[in-house]
Amino acid sequence: MPTDESTTLNRSPASADTADSLAIICGGGSFPAAVVEVAIQRGRRVVLFALKGWADSGLVKQHPHHWIAIGQLGRFLRLAKAAHCRDVVIIGTLLRPPLRHVRLDWRTFRLLPRLAQAFRGGDDRLLSAVVGMIEEGGLRVIGVEEVAPEIVVPEGVLGRHQPSPRDRADIDRALSLIAALGPFDVGQAVVVADNNVLAVEAAEGTDAMLARITEMRGKGRVSTPSRVGVLVKAPKHGQDRRVDLPAIGRQTVENVARAGLAGLAVAAGAAIIAEAAAVTAAADQAGIFLVGVREESRP
Amino acid sequence: MPTDESTTLNRSPASADTADSLAIICGGGSFPAAVVEVAIQRGRRVVLFALKGWADSGLVKQHPHHWIAIGQLGRFLRLAKAAHCRDVVIIGTLLRPPLRHVRLDWRTFRLLPRLAQAFRGGDDRLLSAVVGMIEEGGLRVIGVEEVAPEIVVPEGVLGRHQPSPRDRADIDRALSLIAALGPFDVGQAVVVADNNVLAVEAAEGTDAMLARITEMRGKGRVSTPSRVGVLVKAPKHGQDRRVDLPAIGRQTVENVARAGLAGLAVAAGAAIIAEAAAVTAAADQAGIFLVGVREESRP
Repeated sequence: MPTDESTTLNRSPASADTADSLAIICGGGSFPAAVVEVAIQRGRRVVLFALKGWADSGLVKQHPHHWIAIGQLGRFLRLAKAAHCRDVVIIGTLLRPPLRHVRLDWRTFRLLPRLAQAFRGGDDRLLSAVVGMIEEGGLRVIGVEEVAPEIVVPEGVLGRHQPSPRDRADIDRALSLIAALGPFDVGQAVVVADNNVLAVEAAEGTDAMLARITEMRGKGRVSTPSRVGVLVKAPKHGQDRRVDLPAIGRQTVENVARAGLAGLAVAAGAAIIAEAAAVTAAADQAGIFLVGVREESRP
Repeated sequence: MPTDESTTLNRSPASADTADSLAIICGGGSFPAAVVEVAIQRGRRVVLFALKGWADSGLVKQHPHHWIAIGQLGRFLRLAKAAHCRDVVIIGTLLRPPLRHVRLDWRTFRLLPRLAQAFRGGDDRLLSAVVGMIEEGGLRVIGVEEVAPEIVVPEGVLGRHQPSPRDRADIDRALSLIAALGPFDVGQAVVVADNNVLAVEAAEGTDAMLARITEMRGKGRVSTPSRVGVLVKAPKHGQDRRVDLPAIGRQTVENVARAGLAGLAVAAGAAIIAEAAAVTAAADQAGIFLVGVREESRP
């Protein structure tokens, strides 16, 4: 269970003299680097726990770090405590790893029945179970918005292009659909074009889903004209927001443009963006909008 | 509005001496041929209304027929009445057609505002609107199960292989998910493997969705072992069951096997199967189950 002590984060760099370090469990992709950078700028001492098979070794070697395999919960807890970590943030691609990257230590082994149960519930429940196990081990798992609010998408239009009233209606429909999918632990992203649902993301990931739109458009199976339709990404209802927030980056913007959509909308405060300035510039140049929306607009 | 006269169908061939013919609006794929064949076996006189761009000319030319374009509602009603048709069945692939195949006659033109409104509601609402317009024109649109019950999937296991209790649990979860998607006019098909939702079908079609599973499996992104998981197809809740029933055929079975799933389940009484014997044999040979399930098992 989470301990209820008040956060020591969001402090200015000048006050960064507490003894505890921040453990950053690093998955794949570019988000771990962004979080590490911001945490250090904010005066946090960091220790990276790099997931074998996922984390970027170029980033990892620049900072105090340990490599850990998926399945080494006991090792992680021991090393994190030895490094005086109290808070943990989990960031980066955490797709279910190939089995060859899994190493089970005894602590994890004893927890396997619980993990197996959680595994059957989908990614969301699996990650929640892992968070619970880390906290039972005496650490506190915090959300990325506590450590690096700079990479969390704010509310409002980020670039030059504005969503039209039709785009706004498509966004609302998409948010409702994501909400309806919540109990099934599926679908952080959907594409809606002029009220028609073109695609629902499950295990394939956002880029593959957008490639599908591009392909269907090429075959004449998308009847809405170009520059109509939105990609919407939002966390599932009931999702533990300390892990696996929806993420967007330059590639998302490029794929949205290629799919002939009008723009993309993400849940404000509950989605992360890598290199916001570059992504916004890319959206401007591609002629698509990029907006952070309140999930409360869900009907 | 539907007229409330009692059906003249399901009669034996011997009684097929009534004056009215059955209008069969033929889309693409192999289902129109199956329906035409069964209807004739059952003693029905048929007139085919072949949709340009979709219907199979090889089938069409064997029977009394007219070619019509999407958008020629007035022409269809005039020709159907001239041919003494009272009942209409709509069968075959009815994907949104390329615009070049659309021809608007005056009746359709006057109905465009209503069609445009329905169009924005998704395929389901669009087809319902078309059904309504045909009935306002004085014909009665009937379901395929009235004309050709032989091609409707019955309840129970069709082949040699049985779904396991885990498969049954996956089927239930999939049916619940399809039910949750109902209000969004999306998703007649989903893939669930050991309680995880791997894919949700939207505009891409079932074959493309299954190809995605195969591809993800190749990339190691599907963590459930081979021969775990089911494809489930069922009509959306609230869908007009006189049009666009979920359909399966040989290719579905082959794609399910290729995707490494354990089998496929479809809504009994509300899904159609082309060449049931051949499809069942293909499932047996591929080692997958094929089952018609009651939607009432939806929680």
